[in-house]
Amino acid sequence: MTLDDRRLHLGLPRGMRDRFPDDLAARAAVLSKMVRRFELFGFVPLDTPALERLEVLTGKYGEEGEKLGYRVMKRGAELEQALAKVKAGQAGAAELADLGLRYDLTVPLARVVASAGERLPKPFKRYQVGPVWRADRPQHGRYREFVQCDVDIVGTDSPVADAELVCLMLEVFADLGLSEVQIHLNHREVLAALSSACGNAPEHFGGFCAALDKLDKVGREGVKTDMLRRGLGTARLSELWDVAGDSPALAEGEALERWRRKFMQFVGEAPGTPAWGKLEAVLRAVQGLGADAERVRVNPALARGLDYYTGAVFEAVSPDADIGSLGGGGRYDGLIEQMSGKSIPATGTSFGLERIVDVLGAAGRLDEPRRRGAVAAVLVGGGADEDLRRGAAVAGLLRRAGVPCQVGYQPGARWGKQIQEAVRAGCDFVVLVGADAAGSADPGRLVIKRLSDGVQKTLTLEEAADWINSRR
Amino acid sequence: MTLDDRRLHLGLPRGMRDRFPDDLAARAAVLSKMVRRFELFGFVPLDTPALERLEVLTGKYGEEGEKLGYRVMKRGAELEQALAKVKAGQAGAAELADLGLRYDLTVPLARVVASAGERLPKPFKRYQVGPVWRADRPQHGRYREFVQCDVDIVGTDSPVADAELVCLMLEVFADLGLSEVQIHLNHREVLAALSSACGNAPEHFGGFCAALDKLDKVGREGVKTDMLRRGLGTARLSELWDVAGDSPALAEGEALERWRRKFMQFVGEAPGTPAWGKLEAVLRAVQGLGADAERVRVNPALARGLDYYTGAVFEAVSPDADIGSLGGGGRYDGLIEQMSGKSIPATGTSFGLERIVDVLGAAGRLDEPRRRGAVAAVLVGGGADEDLRRGAAVAGLLRRAGVPCQVGYQPGARWGKQIQEAVRAGCDFVVLVGADAAGSADPGRLVIKRLSDGVQKTLTLEEAADWINSRR
Repeated sequence: MTLDDRRLHLGLPRGMRDRFPDDLAARAAVLSKMVRRFELFGFVPLDTPALERLEVLTGKYGEEGEKLGYRVMKRGAELEQALAKVKAGQAGAAELADLGLRYDLTVPLARVVASAGERLPKPFKRYQVGPVWRADRPQHGRYREFVQCDVDIVGTDSPVADAELVCLMLEVFADLGLSEVQIHLNHREVLAALSSACGNAPEHFGGFCAALDKLDKVGREGVKTDMLRRGLGTARLSELWDVAGDSPALAEGEALERWRRKFMQFVGEAPGTPAWGKLEAVLRAVQGLGADAERVRVNPALARGLDYYTGAVFEAVSPDADIGSLGGGGRYDGLIEQMSGKSIPATGTSFGLERIVDVLGAAGRLDEPRRRGAVAAVLVGGGADEDLRRGAAVAGLLRRAGVPCQVGYQPGARWGKQIQEAVRAGCDFVVLVGADAAGSADPGRLVIKRLSDGVQKTLTLEEAADWINSRR
Repeated sequence: MTLDDRRLHLGLPRGMRDRFPDDLAARAAVLSKMVRRFELFGFVPLDTPALERLEVLTGKYGEEGEKLGYRVMKRGAELEQALAKVKAGQAGAAELADLGLRYDLTVPLARVVASAGERLPKPFKRYQVGPVWRADRPQHGRYREFVQCDVDIVGTDSPVADAELVCLMLEVFADLGLSEVQIHLNHREVLAALSSACGNAPEHFGGFCAALDKLDKVGREGVKTDMLRRGLGTARLSELWDVAGDSPALAEGEALERWRRKFMQFVGEAPGTPAWGKLEAVLRAVQGLGADAERVRVNPALARGLDYYTGAVFEAVSPDADIGSLGGGGRYDGLIEQMSGKSIPATGTSFGLERIVDVLGAAGRLDEPRRRGAVAAVLVGGGADEDLRRGAAVAGLLRRAGVPCQVGYQPGARWGKQIQEAVRAGCDFVVLVGADAAGSADPGRLVIKRLSDGVQKTLTLEEAADWINSRR
């Protein structure tokens, strides 16, 4: 039952959807593989509420996040007071809300660490799977409610932790049959060096990242236009394109070394100076952890949208997907301090469930859906109370044998009518029970009918269960 | 790691909580038993967004629901326009919101059926597990975000469907080791007859239900006070207490017959007239489906809070729980029509996950938590790139053997420092890899140390995995 019809979305909030059994089965299969891998890497689950206080969310995501977040109105007397203030011109609309739907799973984690930090293991490795909400313009592969699957390592600044996440991503995608997915890697210090080399002051760094990050989507002219609009330096753009447009794989030693030399020359760094050194430490750890170096690329234009990243950033990219990234993340050493005043380094990555399922579906690589409704309906003839009781007993025994089944809802009605109900309910078999069930002279045997072709047999309960289990 | 400390809830929205690994493992174990049982009864999964349009939610839950629902503010230009209207006194605060967090899982199901009805199986049996939000006064066992596990049967008015839900509830609680849980059963027509017998006009029926439903919490005097406040008839209260205060088990034939006679006398019904006849049909189906009649009671004071019920209502009650009901539901034949204009009968029930986990926990009947972090840390001495590579390979092989493990984040650091990190991260074993690992002269063997008692062995990888897997 895949119901992907526009009519179904009548009455739904814009950009959101219902999920029907086939879709949910596909999602569950993907999730179970992911979670298995997360746990083998030592991550433990954590869950946080869908709602966060607005002061927790505010100021963490940059301009776009402020705009796209869903805010929840105050209630009762607090709403009345806020409304009075707004009417009197003493406050803006922001005064009316006190909570917001979470925009990602990273800020809630940072809140948990800020309040529970000392009692958590250190490093604390948690995974969390759950929906987040962003009032973005809906489009193919982008919903306003979507599930993120996050893994984070809190409490270490080791590049081995960043590298572990890169390896985990590669293994998760391999588990899912998506071995062609590549991990693009960059470092915010590399971006800072590029921005500075373009003549931008530090306060323009965010704008520089936002503009450059769109290089693969809008092209060089598009980025240039955006940079001009933002008042960024464009004098050295041809050199920037040469550096930022190149994305050598970790396995391509010479290409990587050529890129390094171009980068160093452009930004004027001596060997061993900050930006390259920091990127190199992560690259070495990634190689040290044995990642497939063909599948890891340096991508100097990769910035990731959110404001809180401070170190390595990474993104999972399907080579043929026009659907955007399948996940990504990075190091955010300042976020927890912003909440608790205590500096705790952290790094993490996120998998986008909907996009991964979409890509697997388009490639025909989803597992066959397993979930379905009742396979058998036990129909009761005659209609006496003892007939119903016998039917219920049969259903109970079939369930014990692992057969999803139900007793028909019209005991005593004509067989034809009851069978019609079982067909419409999607059952594959009916079992006829009761005085009227022709052919069941032996009380130890059941009359059972396969609905696809009308074949009817008289079997013991065990044989009936075997027949049903083998034929579905 | 059970972290049930007030400090942890700093920064959380009121009445909501984070969920840590032990808690999540307990919830997952309960859910997996429930879902298994739902599927054996032929229910299929459905998922709907957390947000619904306000017009879908409004007018479905009665007075309390309107008050306790979380409303989401409009965004962008729409918010500006609404705000202008509110400031100009042309609209109230309601104008500022367009979405609401779902208050239950029943109204979203009704929306799905109203829009997709013809393409769904008939009857459509779905289950849904997910959080709902109610800004209720938080108290023991009551959160503002809580998980409901709903099963509903849409498209049949058969009492066998209501009875199937009662049987399913009994089986779910038996699966969970809560065989003492009883199902209380009533019918809104019985309540209507009681209300009418008390001299109340039909428009007072909702108030009568709300007052009587609290009989077990506030007692007779409390109900009477509430009834007077609501302007309800109180002349026949002593007779009402006699009828409504009695709750015979289905197994107690004589007590049930005595109750029936009292009820008929009080409401003035001839045998076979509507109210008793409708309750009796459900009771007969419950018995017909073979439910344990000791565990099912008629409870004439049971009304269930929500406005949309029209037929049978039921509630799961733990005999020793002061925590409230563990779940419940009923028939709502009018709800889908309210949305689509097309009359489609439906019945359903809901399990409250938090309360069930709380009751199981208090009774010491939760399964041992299985989930945990990394069991082993592979620590790398020496610090050369090839040492790290060897450590990563060992970790990969241990994972293949099912051991959750991680490579230490400080390769090359002193063993003591690395072991300290593994202890703080909660690991039980460390594997020492690299040139410095004393005792591993044989490259096919690993030095492995159990942290609880410091026992150290030199083993093959297979032996090491066996040791770890057997000792945790």
